[in-house]
Amino acid sequence: MSETGRCYRAQDLERFLTDAFVALDVPGDDAATVAHLMVEADLHGYDTHGSFRLRQYVNRLRDGGTNPKPWIRIERESDATAVVDGDNGLGHLAMVFATELAMEKAAAHGIGWVGINAGNHAGPASLYVKMPLARDMVGLYAAVGSANHVPPWGGTDLLLGTNPIAFAVPAGEEPPVVLDMATTVAAAGKIKTLAQRGEAMPEGWMVGRDGKPLTDPTRQKEGFLLPIGGPKGYGLALVIGLLAGVLNGANFTSDVVDFTADTSSPTNTGQFIAAISVDAFMDVDAFKREVDTHLGRLKSSDTLPGFDRVRIPGDRRDAIYRERSERGIPLHPNLVQALSEIAEELNIDRLS
Amino acid sequence: MSETGRCYRAQDLERFLTDAFVALDVPGDDAATVAHLMVEADLHGYDTHGSFRLRQYVNRLRDGGTNPKPWIRIERESDATAVVDGDNGLGHLAMVFATELAMEKAAAHGIGWVGINAGNHAGPASLYVKMPLARDMVGLYAAVGSANHVPPWGGTDLLLGTNPIAFAVPAGEEPPVVLDMATTVAAAGKIKTLAQRGEAMPEGWMVGRDGKPLTDPTRQKEGFLLPIGGPKGYGLALVIGLLAGVLNGANFTSDVVDFTADTSSPTNTGQFIAAISVDAFMDVDAFKREVDTHLGRLKSSDTLPGFDRVRIPGDRRDAIYRERSERGIPLHPNLVQALSEIAEELNIDRLS
Repeated sequence: MSETGRCYRAQDLERFLTDAFVALDVPGDDAATVAHLMVEADLHGYDTHGSFRLRQYVNRLRDGGTNPKPWIRIERESDATAVVDGDNGLGHLAMVFATELAMEKAAAHGIGWVGINAGNHAGPASLYVKMPLARDMVGLYAAVGSANHVPPWGGTDLLLGTNPIAFAVPAGEEPPVVLDMATTVAAAGKIKTLAQRGEAMPEGWMVGRDGKPLTDPTRQKEGFLLPIGGPKGYGLALVIGLLAGVLNGANFTSDVVDFTADTSSPTNTGQFIAAISVDAFMDVDAFKREVDTHLGRLKSSDTLPGFDRVRIPGDRRDAIYRERSERGIPLHPNLVQALSEIAEELNIDRLS
Repeated sequence: MSETGRCYRAQDLERFLTDAFVALDVPGDDAATVAHLMVEADLHGYDTHGSFRLRQYVNRLRDGGTNPKPWIRIERESDATAVVDGDNGLGHLAMVFATELAMEKAAAHGIGWVGINAGNHAGPASLYVKMPLARDMVGLYAAVGSANHVPPWGGTDLLLGTNPIAFAVPAGEEPPVVLDMATTVAAAGKIKTLAQRGEAMPEGWMVGRDGKPLTDPTRQKEGFLLPIGGPKGYGLALVIGLLAGVLNGANFTSDVVDFTADTSSPTNTGQFIAAISVDAFMDVDAFKREVDTHLGRLKSSDTLPGFDRVRIPGDRRDAIYRERSERGIPLHPNLVQALSEIAEELNIDRLS
């Protein structure tokens, strides 16, 4: 993947991203929070959801689409639920606020389920579902995608996003289970990366309007992303849109603003995050031991021809994290170029 | 599908099922509750999850695998969560108990999330996720499948079930959205029905141990069900197993008891049901209007060649329900034969 580029230290990248946001009137603390989460995404190998997204965030801050100084607040609340108004700030900020609130509620009432409106693209879901792990809680997240690339099953109108869903479940000695998936076979970000690199998509990711496979990532707009399991993935994307979007007063279907194409309109992006306290269900240590036992059995399965081992969702991320923390984050030359252009535009120090 | 058989009136089928359970020492009220839900499944066209399952339930009650007189109770509880011990009774009974509890908690605290252990096969998920709709709540359900037909992605050991997930979301004038899906391309019940009817499976439902397509449903045991989206469906099945099973003290992976093959061991089946009060998030009428708007847009999409219209998950079920409520429930001759054999074994009146 990105191993062709030079490696950069996490702290240097974080400083660069912070500088970029501050140059666009984002307060220093908020800038540092978002920069840190973007670099966390890079460190874990979410190459399409970390600093790769700076260009989009910068354009939207520059053109008034995103509010640099949001007043993030609780709009509606019950014991175990809330709706948070992200005030159109950088999406990471509302997500951190909502996740902390969900954990507080889970500690007091067993579960906390917090929806967001007026949010924005917030990087990979795994950033947020993993936060409850430190408190022995399960994390659950879903979002309305930041652009519509998917028609309803059997249709051709682009009314749905890749609407991701994510879960994190604590384990004992084993790494936690972290599942972070688009409801399409491929995520839009991966296609962007292939386009940037001049590589082709595998068949099965997209079809054209004629229903035939589409493999040229630069022709993405001429076709549709395919949902997983056909009508099932469509159903999941629809339900996620209703729960992460409509239920929180956020946008869905044709109201969704393509956050890349339109850099000046608020997106009113919707997400939800839930934290579930393991202790409300059973003894935490017993749970972790049981999870370890089941994960061990899955990993010990005999393999199909062509597979070296059975993986647990998220288990590769830890290895990538360790490697990148040590050796640095490899950035593709095209991305380095894009970051240099941003440095010039904003008159900040280049990444070095 | 089952249109080749004679039609039976819902009330006659319900009486027959009640008699069968009572003959196996199930108290009259409980027998009637389960019979009613099984006929509801038949009326909605869930042909693999209604009276089709009587044979399995009867065998397990007869052989001591299922407890006819369970003491269903709350094992652990917080404001917004609970774990229910189903005491190994018929699965429908614990599910009704848990769903009512989840709705009470949602009314008081915004959301109620209730897990079950010592449950059993409980028919289609849609029966339970639809219950919260009457109280303007969203329903969410998942279960550990009642037998392992699926290996982890890349593996060959059968450690996972079809682990279904289901959602119901209220609408206004439109029918509610009811998504009830296995995390495999095909559900095990559908394969059973094809085997009973002597029909072949489409390619893509299963592969053999050689990785090649398997289409003969009677050879089901020689191959694997395929998860939706490959590793994504595997990830979903795993997380569902942890949340519906392990978190509630229920079985998962190699502890799962095949409830057809083994009729004398408790299955310790796990499920969870959540109810989410729309009112905790936004004005109920405004929500319903918004949902209607979005569903209308999806249904108005232009269609791909080969599709007459875009469907909303669950929308066919209402039409089937109306038709079957009027004309009766068509039962396949093989199923009628199986029910006759049960009548003879239990010395109860035949279905007529």
